[in-house]
Amino acid sequence: MQLTSSELATIVSGELIGDGSIILTGVNGLSDARENEISFLGNLKYLQEALKTGAGIIFIANDIDISKFKNKNIIRVLNPKYAYSIVLGIIEKERIDAIKAVGTHNSAFIANGVKLGKDVYVGQNVIIEIGAEIGDDTKIFPNVYIGRNVKIGNRCIIYPNVVIREDTLVRNRVIIHPGVVIGGDGFGFIHTNGKIQKIPQIGRVEIDSDVEIGANTTVDRATVDATRIGSGTKIDNLVQIAHNVQIGKNCIIVAQVGISGSTKLGDNVTIGGQSGLAGHLKIGDNVIIASQSGISRDIKDNECVGGNPVASISQSLKIRVLTRKLPEMYRDLKRIKKSLG
Amino acid sequence: MQLTSSELATIVSGELIGDGSIILTGVNGLSDARENEISFLGNLKYLQEALKTGAGIIFIANDIDISKFKNKNIIRVLNPKYAYSIVLGIIEKERIDAIKAVGTHNSAFIANGVKLGKDVYVGQNVIIEIGAEIGDDTKIFPNVYIGRNVKIGNRCIIYPNVVIREDTLVRNRVIIHPGVVIGGDGFGFIHTNGKIQKIPQIGRVEIDSDVEIGANTTVDRATVDATRIGSGTKIDNLVQIAHNVQIGKNCIIVAQVGISGSTKLGDNVTIGGQSGLAGHLKIGDNVIIASQSGISRDIKDNECVGGNPVASISQSLKIRVLTRKLPEMYRDLKRIKKSLG
Amino acid sequence: MQLTSSELATIVSGELIGDGSIILTGVNGLSDARENEISFLGNLKYLQEALKTGAGIIFIANDIDISKFKNKNIIRVLNPKYAYSIVLGIIEKERIDAIKAVGTHNSAFIANGVKLGKDVYVGQNVIIEIGAEIGDDTKIFPNVYIGRNVKIGNRCIIYPNVVIREDTLVRNRVIIHPGVVIGGDGFGFIHTNGKIQKIPQIGRVEIDSDVEIGANTTVDRATVDATRIGSGTKIDNLVQIAHNVQIGKNCIIVAQVGISGSTKLGDNVTIGGQSGLAGHLKIGDNVIIASQSGISRDIKDNECVGGNPVASISQSLKIRVLTRKLPEMYRDLKRIKKSLG
Repeated sequence: MQLTSSELATIVSGELIGDGSIILTGVNGLSDARENEISFLGNLKYLQEALKTGAGIIFIANDIDISKFKNKNIIRVLNPKYAYSIVLGIIEKERIDAIKAVGTHNSAFIANGVKLGKDVYVGQNVIIEIGAEIGDDTKIFPNVYIGRNVKIGNRCIIYPNVVIREDTLVRNRVIIHPGVVIGGDGFGFIHTNGKIQKIPQIGRVEIDSDVEIGANTTVDRATVDATRIGSGTKIDNLVQIAHNVQIGKNCIIVAQVGISGSTKLGDNVTIGGQSGLAGHLKIGDNVIIASQSGISRDIKDNECVGGNPVASISQSLKIRVLTRKLPEMYRDLKRIKKSLG
Repeated sequence: MQLTSSELATIVSGELIGDGSIILTGVNGLSDARENEISFLGNLKYLQEALKTGAGIIFIANDIDISKFKNKNIIRVLNPKYAYSIVLGIIEKERIDAIKAVGTHNSAFIANGVKLGKDVYVGQNVIIEIGAEIGDDTKIFPNVYIGRNVKIGNRCIIYPNVVIREDTLVRNRVIIHPGVVIGGDGFGFIHTNGKIQKIPQIGRVEIDSDVEIGANTTVDRATVDATRIGSGTKIDNLVQIAHNVQIGKNCIIVAQVGISGSTKLGDNVTIGGQSGLAGHLKIGDNVIIASQSGISRDIKDNECVGGNPVASISQSLKIRVLTRKLPEMYRDLKRIKKSLG
Repeated sequence: MQLTSSELATIVSGELIGDGSIILTGVNGLSDARENEISFLGNLKYLQEALKTGAGIIFIANDIDISKFKNKNIIRVLNPKYAYSIVLGIIEKERIDAIKAVGTHNSAFIANGVKLGKDVYVGQNVIIEIGAEIGDDTKIFPNVYIGRNVKIGNRCIIYPNVVIREDTLVRNRVIIHPGVVIGGDGFGFIHTNGKIQKIPQIGRVEIDSDVEIGANTTVDRATVDATRIGSGTKIDNLVQIAHNVQIGKNCIIVAQVGISGSTKLGDNVTIGGQSGLAGHLKIGDNVIIASQSGISRDIKDNECVGGNPVASISQSLKIRVLTRKLPEMYRDLKRIKKSLG
């Protein structure tokens, strides 16, 4: 990346205050940034760092008083973090373009009849089984396994060592990080005659557009029908999505969450890290679940909940604080009992 | 699959009530099933769905009053879910037979002297190191790594991108889902001279027959001797089994459970999702551990426990409910203290 | 391995009491060991097993009264477990030497200009992208993916099916177990115009010398700058290390722990299994965090903490015990309220 400060202001739709000819070649945190680097003030608690930064340009929110920034070059924007994110995207794009990952490596095994779109990249040792289809501009990195009849849309990125088992549907612009397993068998068994009998899992997984799935996460295929992840939903690393789970649109699911079989999430649901959801639940739209919660009942639209058993987040925080007073409460109770005889 | 309703009744050992000539080609849930599909009533809370279903055949338990199902075609069976599971098995078998996964792909690396049984499938890029043996009818999917001296029995399925390190023993009909790691080093260290020194892990892993291991689960090799998983045990995704753990027969271990080093489980143990067990514990036969529990003491045969610290499941539920009353209790205590002076 | 008892005493710097000509070929637990095997007494609660063991040699601590071990051959050492660990290392070395994993397999894809050190092993189907460097004596097992500009030092072991994405730095003697993902994108998003927008993650991961990372663990690349793991730190299986996390030296992080973005750990920190740490925290040196804790505030040097909300470990244990008295406390409170009117 090489931009002048005035070109940069145009790109992020901001107002430049200061020198328009600064050459900018990278980004950095406020404390470490140098004269050719861009930084941003996203939170006023970092104001002192911003005043002292060596950054060539600082993105600052429109509503902040900039009278203290006399000797600094500033670009005022609506959302400094978003402006910064736009610059990160420019740098990332240059890095990806440099890779020139296009074309099919001759060590890849592509079954007869597989449909490959335009400008697809298929890396070393990739296996694509019969009946699969890959859309335009999709990149499939080395050592990926794509099972029979898998359909993948346009502009997806499938990172190395991902496994996508048969019949999975992946729409457009989906990013699947390394080591993810899509379409493994659901965990379904039945006890008969004192034996644990496997229930065959003949369903599939459907992943809508603009979904991102973090490294080593697992999404199981449905027993019958489909496990579904709605468009725009972002899933972090090491998450477990069980068979027949239905996840709505634009949800955020943080690392190491587990969602049990057939549970249904609405749209815009946020689940904090390491939380667990029991099976067959209904979680409404816009629900927020705190980290390390244990959810074993339905949650209505717009609720913010936490803890185990679940309570409103404010109630749950109050309870957590009061558990620390248990020794004191126990002592008081004992004294009262004694005094009352 | 294509069966008449009368053939189907024979297959599931059920009693057909209605038309024996219905052509059945698939399965579905009660609400979605159509005239060529099979569904089942496994739980009376879905009775209304069953009465309204468009399914060609419904499996219903022998002891249910079917007088309300006048216009429906029914097969009465001992266990409707199990009958349904049998049908899923037929569909799955057709799908697997269609794959015709037999033979050794020429891109696989099979060391000199490796013994391959009859009708084995070895997919693309599989590596099988010196001294390994693979039994009859076992399928090894692409990108699997099988270390030195690993023995795998008959009719196993090893899905793509599994790693089985050296000296592991896997008996018959074991299913290992994608991304599983068997035989990674146990986590053993010793502090000497202010340094953390690795304790070499020279043991192995032994997995008995009819075990199933979920995607991205890890089973560590023993320090010395073996980490063992008993026959019929089913393990879900993203589970951690540490070095020298001994798991009995027919256990069920749900996703994201962690079992620490040298802990021993009896037979028929069930562990709910995200629970953690400390090391060197003894868990008896038929124990049930609720999800998200933290177990740090031995558990006797037949106990049902939960929580952290662990209590009986009923006690643990009572405690969880009462924690929600903590704010009320704290307020009451304060008032009482005030009134008593 | 084949050693006499007198050679063994020299190797572990111990004092032999008994026959110096015993031939020793392996190790085993006290109960199972035979005449050609070595065992150790690490904890006095196993004294009875030690007195009855069939082991040819027992390592015993210098400060233990050995008058009861009349008919046994003993080697007295400072730390019996460490002496045992030295023997395990000899056995492991023989096993590794037997593998003769040196040289580059012709199925590996090594980009032009990649620098390979002396005596490097590169297994089947390994991919090493442009700009990467691999140090002397490093072993890279099959199906590993190494991205652009990754630098790996000397004497590292990278087990099968590991993914190391671009720009990662790995210093010397680092062990990375199967299925690990280093350098996957951090989980960073920004809500703009009602959409969840990905924040590009252009940073990297830096792993210092003598680090060990357990199977299927994930370490995310930084948004900008680096996620860092200090020298000597040992990480167990299925751990999540988020973007921009900074981990000090000689830390121990047990299985299934999750550390959120930008959190900073000092040196010698120990974190028990399944604990979760919120983002942007500062954890001091020598801190111990109990298993299954939920940490949402900074922790000072030398603190031992646990629970959620976090308390000192002793306080946290007291609270856990008292939660079991909640039913009793609730009953008492009710009675007192009644009696007081």
